[in-house]
Amino acid sequence: MSFNYLTNVPLKEAKENFLKHLKESGFAAGSESVPSMESSGRISAKAVYAKISAPHYTASAMDGIALRADVTYGATATTPVILEKDQFTVVDTGDPVPENCNAVVMIEDVIWEDDGRVKLYQAAAPWANIRQIGEDICAGEMILPSFSNIEPSTVGAMLAAGVLKADVLKKPVVGIIPTGDEIVEPSNNPGPGDVMEFNSSIFSGMLRKWDCIPKTYPIVKDKPELIREALSKACSECDIVLINAGSSAGRDDWTTQCISEIGEVYYHGIAIKPGKPAILAAAGNKPILGIPGYPVSGIIVIDEFLKPVVDLWYHRGEKPKETVKATLAKSIVSGLKYQEYVRVKLANVGGKMVASPLPRGAGLVSSFMKADGMLTIPQGLEGLETGEEVDVELLKPLEALNNTVLAIGSHDPLIDELSDMLHAEDPNLYLSSTHVGSMGGIMAVKRGESHIAGCHLLDEKTGEYNYSYMEKYFPDGGIRLVECVGRTQGIMIAKGNPLGIEKFEDLAKPGLRYVNRQKGSGTRVLTDYLVKKYGMDADGIEGYDREESTHTSVAAQIAAGSGDAGMGIYSAAKIYDLDFVPVCTEQYDFIIADFAWELPQVQKIIEILKSDEFARRINALGGYTLEHPGTVRRQF
Amino acid sequence: MSFNYLTNVPLKEAKENFLKHLKESGFAAGSESVPSMESSGRISAKAVYAKISAPHYTASAMDGIALRADVTYGATATTPVILEKDQFTVVDTGDPVPENCNAVVMIEDVIWEDDGRVKLYQAAAPWANIRQIGEDICAGEMILPSFSNIEPSTVGAMLAAGVLKADVLKKPVVGIIPTGDEIVEPSNNPGPGDVMEFNSSIFSGMLRKWDCIPKTYPIVKDKPELIREALSKACSECDIVLINAGSSAGRDDWTTQCISEIGEVYYHGIAIKPGKPAILAAAGNKPILGIPGYPVSGIIVIDEFLKPVVDLWYHRGEKPKETVKATLAKSIVSGLKYQEYVRVKLANVGGKMVASPLPRGAGLVSSFMKADGMLTIPQGLEGLETGEEVDVELLKPLEALNNTVLAIGSHDPLIDELSDMLHAEDPNLYLSSTHVGSMGGIMAVKRGESHIAGCHLLDEKTGEYNYSYMEKYFPDGGIRLVECVGRTQGIMIAKGNPLGIEKFEDLAKPGLRYVNRQKGSGTRVLTDYLVKKYGMDADGIEGYDREESTHTSVAAQIAAGSGDAGMGIYSAAKIYDLDFVPVCTEQYDFIIADFAWELPQVQKIIEILKSDEFARRINALGGYTLEHPGTVRRQF
Repeated sequence: MSFNYLTNVPLKEAKENFLKHLKESGFAAGSESVPSMESSGRISAKAVYAKISAPHYTASAMDGIALRADVTYGATATTPVILEKDQFTVVDTGDPVPENCNAVVMIEDVIWEDDGRVKLYQAAAPWANIRQIGEDICAGEMILPSFSNIEPSTVGAMLAAGVLKADVLKKPVVGIIPTGDEIVEPSNNPGPGDVMEFNSSIFSGMLRKWDCIPKTYPIVKDKPELIREALSKACSECDIVLINAGSSAGRDDWTTQCISEIGEVYYHGIAIKPGKPAILAAAGNKPILGIPGYPVSGIIVIDEFLKPVVDLWYHRGEKPKETVKATLAKSIVSGLKYQEYVRVKLANVGGKMVASPLPRGAGLVSSFMKADGMLTIPQGLEGLETGEEVDVELLKPLEALNNTVLAIGSHDPLIDELSDMLHAEDPNLYLSSTHVGSMGGIMAVKRGESHIAGCHLLDEKTGEYNYSYMEKYFPDGGIRLVECVGRTQGIMIAKGNPLGIEKFEDLAKPGLRYVNRQKGSGTRVLTDYLVKKYGMDADGIEGYDREESTHTSVAAQIAAGSGDAGMGIYSAAKIYDLDFVPVCTEQYDFIIADFAWELPQVQKIIEILKSDEFARRINALGGYTLEHPGTVRRQF
Repeated sequence: MSFNYLTNVPLKEAKENFLKHLKESGFAAGSESVPSMESSGRISAKAVYAKISAPHYTASAMDGIALRADVTYGATATTPVILEKDQFTVVDTGDPVPENCNAVVMIEDVIWEDDGRVKLYQAAAPWANIRQIGEDICAGEMILPSFSNIEPSTVGAMLAAGVLKADVLKKPVVGIIPTGDEIVEPSNNPGPGDVMEFNSSIFSGMLRKWDCIPKTYPIVKDKPELIREALSKACSECDIVLINAGSSAGRDDWTTQCISEIGEVYYHGIAIKPGKPAILAAAGNKPILGIPGYPVSGIIVIDEFLKPVVDLWYHRGEKPKETVKATLAKSIVSGLKYQEYVRVKLANVGGKMVASPLPRGAGLVSSFMKADGMLTIPQGLEGLETGEEVDVELLKPLEALNNTVLAIGSHDPLIDELSDMLHAEDPNLYLSSTHVGSMGGIMAVKRGESHIAGCHLLDEKTGEYNYSYMEKYFPDGGIRLVECVGRTQGIMIAKGNPLGIEKFEDLAKPGLRYVNRQKGSGTRVLTDYLVKKYGMDADGIEGYDREESTHTSVAAQIAAGSGDAGMGIYSAAKIYDLDFVPVCTEQYDFIIADFAWELPQVQKIIEILKSDEFARRINALGGYTLEHPGTVRRQF
């Protein structure tokens, strides 16, 4: 089928032509009349003209007396003028000025006589302290052009000008049709193979930010007649239609065919990654977008293609993306054929903004949540080098990034607890972490790409933790080693210990499926050491080359039965309700770069490490011992 | 009464102490549980931990066949491995990987034999093309710390992690109590002395932007018992209470007294202008703010004091205001005693951002609507000089300001029509105007503070318009004079012409109240010329010194009966349904600076001037003649 053939059209070309097609199709916002009072945040559909002037009457601008200016002429500091009771009227601010009066004298300048007359020591200028009709707004004046944002103050101006109703652009209703035989409603107990339908919730959140009304339809099975029916219904009820998934060239992908039966498919296959299988189409003046199924692809396609469609609807100008210059912490290989999107963590490390690429999998919705920025690698570029200066689109406010302490290094759930406590203590401060193992952390601090790093590296010779590594990798110093916790390392095994693991050597049992940690992690260093110590053969342990990068991900495999045992800390085993065979207690410390030491976010962390609340939380996690957390063990 | 005594406490001191009092009082957000699906845009009330892993099962990352990796070992480009039907399982992307399998081979790499067996020319690595359990999110992991923004992608992560409900901070309900005997609901036909209650609509719009729920109460009369009752009710129903007006020291101002009876008044009188009579108070843990009655004062007090209270509630960090460096077009005198707020127009004129102060009256709600930026003059400073570089808080996006053509000069309603047409033609372009008369426009262009200026200046000697002024004020050139329209100038008089005005000389009729235009305006130049020409005595015309700055504001006074006659253009008379005695036809042109000529927004205006739609709109206004609008009359 020709429609399943994916093209590879450059983003810009596809976007421009698609918008041109939509304009020509008559795609445009309708308008509706709403009470002006409730119009804040909307966009004017036509120019608004004042119906009455503001003020609508000649008003006193002061508390005082209204009079004809000429009766005060001649008054001076030495020769006051005395006014009879019928020569003035007492007025408050906002009171109408009587018709025969053309000035107001402030109450502070009025001397009252006992008989009710007043004495003035100064002449009044005509129209002094009077708000003229239309001083603020004149009837008939245009107070707002077409297609303008109605700000709160605009609402005030409209009401002051007697405009009680406003014609505003309708909010577009955007239909979202989730499709797929494997798709189920979100659940906390899904079966194997069930893919939870959370894309529509992500897309709805994005749409609401852009002032659209999302309308999510029930999940549609992969059957052409059902998809066709759902599309027709959505096109009749909505202004824009999104159909999710079924847009790649797989065996159940009917979307393109179905759209082409009710409208026109302009593009299927855009030169972007992720997001390539996007479909840009329309039925009459209703845009239809085929959104790829993976959440990251979906978010990117919606941002790149739906956002401009919404801007076209609202007659919004182009808003350049807010970017920041950053130094790339790690090289990225990219395909020449695509424009590629890479989520990055950003942090101001020692005065320079550092961008660390996050995992790129299109299925990793957490990568978007963790991302501080988005790096776009243009089509035709093979990649970017470590240390290159790049422009990164900001996904978080710059001031938050400048107040973030970055922790790249060994994983421990306590880092998340620290992050939570830091931001709860001071709303301006944040901790952001990436788990690359202890050696990765040392390197990140050494290269000036991280403020702090969790580290627990055993020196086989001395039996001590961390010291010798600091001496080796920071021969010129520049860091402090700050005490954090002692942790219990051990073997995580399924509840009930079905394979009867009692000690480390039991990991060599035939048939046991081991789940390992990545090379360079403190736990791997420890495991390798123990294997050697007990004279075991690593190659003989099944799964010794199966690497996970956190304690919890090892625990998750064992809990799910895809592995039988793995080394890790007690707190991770506890989360998954696994059995645990303790092996040793190790020292887990923080390496803190000298350039970061004085930062408020770092000092606040030191303070938190010493707090009772930290001890309480750590004890709740389990498997930790606390001596003097937050104290400097040694300065290097 | 001591409470009516206004203090003059510096802003920073009042704000910091007020927030400290609130924290100590236990002012804090409550939480509520909402479906995660609907939590986008909310703030987490506590840390969110994953309930299940994502993926929650071992999933195929590709369409292909699942198998044990070891059955493929030995396969090479020359020596394929052949697999029996029971050695593999066909899987689609997202399908669970069967328990005995640990790799997936992409469908593209699978060669099918006729008997259902498959041939592979490449060995598979263990765990290749498999999404491990928890690859995205591990059960037990903290996915979001407390007090974090829930972004659309966070919703996806929560749902993927089996978190179906989210604890979020409640939105604060903010009660707004309008008070005042003179206050009436908005209307398009208010009586003299009626002050329309639109402040609550402005405040509500601001509050919604900050994620609050505004709750406006009915208008309360200036009676202590009614105010007390309203305050008590609002305190019991809301989290924060605003009471509008009645906070200055006037005779009907009961607010401070009433608040002090149910709570504590911390401050009454802040060293800011406008906004001085603000009240900062609390009843228990409910903040109560007394907001001055003038809309501009109210907006400033709410922005300065309520915004931080809302930030405290939401545990939001400080967000620095976005500012721009600008050159001040006009000096500003400020009081030493106050921090003063001045709304300004901003435009990028010839590469430099120029800030032109707008009228400062606290009652001018339109000044906020027209403002592009806010200039803050610190307490203790006497003012700012013309040409000074100042930091201006942006109220509009910088890119919009960079695409704005600024027209400072003579007023004509057609400028608003041009503005409307320009932005409707291209959503990126804007026209912004200030009315300072023709001479003011010449000076603004000459000083490089305006791109274009409307101008209609009669040369008494030649009878020609504009040319001689251009020669005089631009001796070195640098501008183009672009033809716009011919306009009918005449005498605007009340409907039915009660005073029997037939010709210009009739303006000298005894008892006639004239409304004049400001010196330097083209219309004033014309009027002065005609007065001289007809041998009339300007001093003998009552109101000759009463100056309004636009045609419409003159018309507004006549329509309201506060004046009898004024010179102006036909279109202004028409808006107010006034009678009109034509006096002459004049040439209204645009002076366009050479540095602005090539700007897209200026070129688009030239295009619009030449369009049929412009002619249609101009004819609808009435009183204009069109020859060759948009053509360059002469380049200087």
